[in-house]
Amino acid sequence: MSKAALGPQTLVYPMPAMLVGADVDAKPNFMAVAWGGIACGDPPMISVAIRHARHTLKGIKQNQTFSVNIPSVEQVKETDYCGMVSGSKTDKVHTCRFDVFYGNLGNAPLIEQCPVNLECKVVQILNLGSHSLVIGQIEETYVSEGCLTEGRPDVDKIRPLTYVTNPAARYQGLGEAVGKAWSVGKHLA
Amino acid sequence: MSKAALGPQTLVYPMPAMLVGADVDAKPNFMAVAWGGIACGDPPMISVAIRHARHTLKGIKQNQTFSVNIPSVEQVKETDYCGMVSGSKTDKVHTCRFDVFYGNLGNAPLIEQCPVNLECKVVQILNLGSHSLVIGQIEETYVSEGCLTEGRPDVDKIRPLTYVTNPAARYQGLGEAVGKAWSVGKHLA
Repeated sequence: MSKAALGPQTLVYPMPAMLVGADVDAKPNFMAVAWGGIACGDPPMISVAIRHARHTLKGIKQNQTFSVNIPSVEQVKETDYCGMVSGSKTDKVHTCRFDVFYGNLGNAPLIEQCPVNLECKVVQILNLGSHSLVIGQIEETYVSEGCLTEGRPDVDKIRPLTYVTNPAARYQGLGEAVGKAWSVGKHLA
Repeated sequence: MSKAALGPQTLVYPMPAMLVGADVDAKPNFMAVAWGGIACGDPPMISVAIRHARHTLKGIKQNQTFSVNIPSVEQVKETDYCGMVSGSKTDKVHTCRFDVFYGNLGNAPLIEQCPVNLECKVVQILNLGSHSLVIGQIEETYVSEGCLTEGRPDVDKIRPLTYVTNPAARYQGLGEAVGKAWSVGKHLA
């Protein structure tokens, strides 16, 4: 078999480069999270894995709310920065010049500059080992007006960022379309 | 504010196009799953969201094991096909001409043609509504020899597939590198 066994690894491609936000002691903070994804369709839910000691997790626990902000390739520096420093020592909103807004939940901070924002309410927090898996119900979805086409989100305008894990350890944009979903596989049947 | 509120939506970019596998009644089956991601670092875990009635979920419950196979852009037709038909009616392994192998767990089927394979043991299955969130511990990681560089996984050789949700509903490859992680954000500090 032409396979190498590398031991247990967190090797998924692609990973999103999400900015997870929470008010910590009533002050907005954001961290970069690549570990997570949609967890349920109805009701819509998302999961994000966060180390227990993280500053943002403290805020999520305080308010039982959080946000997931999807950066575009234009926010690559800010995204990387938010993954390197702790909000316990720095005002990341100030350094990144984020314009923060709030939705119906009132205390889940959202980033104006990010094309897509999910406003979430905590459903469950699981302690899985090194990380807490925070599962949230998506209460509202915001999309920048400039990223809509006929009122619907347009990925070519959103231009999302992907995180490629070690050893590459870099951010990439999306590439060429290679097939239409629910379509390209039909001829196999 | 230049934002449109679209109601609660499962809007994350990018999503992976994973092939989740299980032996169902001792026969290997695979389904396409875009909803999931890494759930913990130590021990390494992954979560995948699957509708309760799915054939693959039946096998996951029978064996308490499953696999996550990361297809490359070359498997776009097979990936799409595995998301359209049910293993209760079709032998997808046969139609897709997958070469199936097994690892240490013995009953989590892995796809030879996919460049990356995660062999997983069920930790927990949460009923979140329309979907079961299956959380698995990654017991072993397999990478095709041709996708390694100096013994480590090389994303440029893996060429993973991303799934872009509605309304685009298509598969895309990865695009250009836009920045080095843990680096490009440093100048903001």
